[in-house]
Amino acid sequence: MTTTAPTGLNPHLTDLAARLRAEIGEDAVITEPEERYAGDTAVRAEAGTEFLLVLPRDTAGVQATLRAAHETGTVVVPRGSGSGLSGGAVPSHGAIVLGLERLTAIREIDPLDEVAVVEAGVITADLSAALAPHGFFYAPDPASARLSSIGGNIATNAGGLHCAKYGVTRESVLALEAVLADGTLLRTGHRSIKGVTGLDLTQLLIGSEGTLAVVTAATVRIRPLPVARRTLLARFPSTTAAAAGVNAISLSPVRPAATELLDAATLHDIDANAGSRIAEGDTTILLIELDGYGVEEQTTDLTAALTVAGATLRVIEDETEAEHLWELRRSGRGSGAGGHRLGEDVAVPKSQLGAVFAELAEIGARHGVQTSAVAHAGDGNLHPSLALPSAPEDVPGQLPPAILAAADDLVRAAIDLGGTISGEHGIGTAKRGWLDLELPTPSRDLQRRLKDAFDPRHLLNPGKAL
Amino acid sequence: MTTTAPTGLNPHLTDLAARLRAEIGEDAVITEPEERYAGDTAVRAEAGTEFLLVLPRDTAGVQATLRAAHETGTVVVPRGSGSGLSGGAVPSHGAIVLGLERLTAIREIDPLDEVAVVEAGVITADLSAALAPHGFFYAPDPASARLSSIGGNIATNAGGLHCAKYGVTRESVLALEAVLADGTLLRTGHRSIKGVTGLDLTQLLIGSEGTLAVVTAATVRIRPLPVARRTLLARFPSTTAAAAGVNAISLSPVRPAATELLDAATLHDIDANAGSRIAEGDTTILLIELDGYGVEEQTTDLTAALTVAGATLRVIEDETEAEHLWELRRSGRGSGAGGHRLGEDVAVPKSQLGAVFAELAEIGARHGVQTSAVAHAGDGNLHPSLALPSAPEDVPGQLPPAILAAADDLVRAAIDLGGTISGEHGIGTAKRGWLDLELPTPSRDLQRRLKDAFDPRHLLNPGKAL
Repeated sequence: MTTTAPTGLNPHLTDLAARLRAEIGEDAVITEPEERYAGDTAVRAEAGTEFLLVLPRDTAGVQATLRAAHETGTVVVPRGSGSGLSGGAVPSHGAIVLGLERLTAIREIDPLDEVAVVEAGVITADLSAALAPHGFFYAPDPASARLSSIGGNIATNAGGLHCAKYGVTRESVLALEAVLADGTLLRTGHRSIKGVTGLDLTQLLIGSEGTLAVVTAATVRIRPLPVARRTLLARFPSTTAAAAGVNAISLSPVRPAATELLDAATLHDIDANAGSRIAEGDTTILLIELDGYGVEEQTTDLTAALTVAGATLRVIEDETEAEHLWELRRSGRGSGAGGHRLGEDVAVPKSQLGAVFAELAEIGARHGVQTSAVAHAGDGNLHPSLALPSAPEDVPGQLPPAILAAADDLVRAAIDLGGTISGEHGIGTAKRGWLDLELPTPSRDLQRRLKDAFDPRHLLNPGKAL
Repeated sequence: MTTTAPTGLNPHLTDLAARLRAEIGEDAVITEPEERYAGDTAVRAEAGTEFLLVLPRDTAGVQATLRAAHETGTVVVPRGSGSGLSGGAVPSHGAIVLGLERLTAIREIDPLDEVAVVEAGVITADLSAALAPHGFFYAPDPASARLSSIGGNIATNAGGLHCAKYGVTRESVLALEAVLADGTLLRTGHRSIKGVTGLDLTQLLIGSEGTLAVVTAATVRIRPLPVARRTLLARFPSTTAAAAGVNAISLSPVRPAATELLDAATLHDIDANAGSRIAEGDTTILLIELDGYGVEEQTTDLTAALTVAGATLRVIEDETEAEHLWELRRSGRGSGAGGHRLGEDVAVPKSQLGAVFAELAEIGARHGVQTSAVAHAGDGNLHPSLALPSAPEDVPGQLPPAILAAADDLVRAAIDLGGTISGEHGIGTAKRGWLDLELPTPSRDLQRRLKDAFDPRHLLNPGKAL
């Protein structure tokens, strides 16, 4: 066992490294971590940020890490698979980055209780793959499902494509195993579908972005695979017309499993990247998945509603083609321009989709920024892309001011339309500046008091989310 | 305006009454309330419990009441329609009982956003009645839906018959308007379906039984009325066989809107009370509702699964007959014996339904108590009835010790089977003694700290739920 200080690690972290090596194993403590641990998919720590990476193999290792951090007053930044988009897992200077990626056991799959018990590091798509032979699936499916972990999904209350019908992560989590800031093990919730004993700590931890406790495992609801699926491609002359199509779906009795809106710029970008031919001039697409019983009747009713709304419809009978279209959708993040791009995440009451698209176009024109968007239209959740080509005045590692100004206008527009500053990516570090726009003072005050109740010394992910 | 002290009200409450009459109106302050305000449907306050009843007409009146209570250190007991079954709204001595029953506005129905904004005093069934002309309904439907209020449903996170498919109250609430202990107005949540900004105060308030804040209004999700409904009556030779039938449903691809189990004793009791003929010897029934698209295919698949499991099936084609059966179900609370009866509420992982029925029979035999049960079988939520005929040794107003002992055994059995002490009725005063069975110490400690964060002086519904 070596306890030699690596270059650049301060004595405090060096001592901690030695202690944790002794307690949870040599290979769990990494003093010179790979570059990727310095940030998530969107946000990087500042250069020179010093941190100790700890990757325990089990819940006991998480407890030991938090106990050591608590006793030494060390900040802890919990980390799932690092696929976050808001900086929730970005290291603080002098912190322990506590990675859950080695807690990958699917402890139990129980079709009779319709639950699975999974550790925080399980990759979301791996869970559904493990469930498929049993005839079940796990409903929450962020577009990042092949990268993101269950723990990260819980930390951000992740959404995805199927939420309007199946709910967000919150609706699929029954119970949690978590570790408090001082290393105490906490069990919340129940394995039964119903249960109303005490305050719902499970629900409070979901979406708390690692600021209250570190989730190590979850009991999640699983659902039977649908007996049938059907993909519809509805093409509209404009985003305004497509938004009217979303309203037509709301007034119909059909509730699609997914309703994804892709605007013209996004479609052209997908075609350019994937060699596909999905774009047609300025048209906008609603890509719709129906599932369950009666997909024929569902198709008939939805076709009627969307045709009246002005759509040109194509029912995709071929499953390979349908799968290909959904792959294209997952790859689509708006047009890029080969320079700078910011992927945003706002949500509005879904009747306001047309209005937010109109705002987006105006904002783009005002700031000279290229805009495009995909939307989980059934949820009113929009992922606009704000882009600019590279320019001589660019500051390395920074987005151009015009993109930042456009993002600010966009977030404010979403709030003005009755929406929220983050539909599903979380606040992290990226959106803290806008919190006051959405949360009134009494709410902010309460959230601070709740944080104190869980983590009085503010050692868990300080500077994030709240 | 009179400020004369009524007989029996202490000077503190008399002063408060005068202040509140001046602030929110003469008719909102009731010093000699009707008897029903002394308790809920199951639990009564002790004789001589003195309280002041305040019935504001609006949120401002609720704020004024809480402000006055806060300034004078007066305990406040929030009250919906009084249909609770666990004593959550039972007056404390010297308290203000703050009734929400006059906040009955449905402020908004918006089919395009799929939300309604309703005040706390709206009766649950009235909301669905108001939504029906728009082609929508409100999914949570406790059996008490014609009595209970939206605010009360939120306070207890009420369940009901359709939760396995549509979720409990928690899954249908997007945002809350609430008043904190000091009278501050709090707005939580969002109108969009998605939203992850900050800690989820909406979810924390749901199920908190009036101990954290007083909910005055809610933004709830509404859903399109199903295109079709179908009722199936599956008869099994025993509760064990019916529980196996529930497992067969879990392994099938069909998810009924409701799956209600009624045991033989319950069926005989229903027939005796309603003049119906639903009982057949010792048989147990699963009363099943299918809805949505493809009910024919759903019926075929479910019939196949249940027939293999040993059921005799009848598909109820006649809608009047189907409605009559559901009415009978709603009236069924287990056999009574014309003496003492305790209606219980426990939930277990649903594969354990057979085991909990077996325990129930043993417990009844052990204590000489008549047992029967209905169950929301799709949720594993059981409402056993524990009954005894009247006897000379009875103490007026008290349940016989044998019933209390049987209830204790039952709750412990549910916990041993991996279940919970309350599926949907809440803890109130009735179940506080069992809290420690279910909640480990770290969870209890945290819940106390959260209570302190909301209500540091413990003025909101003390002695309940936590």
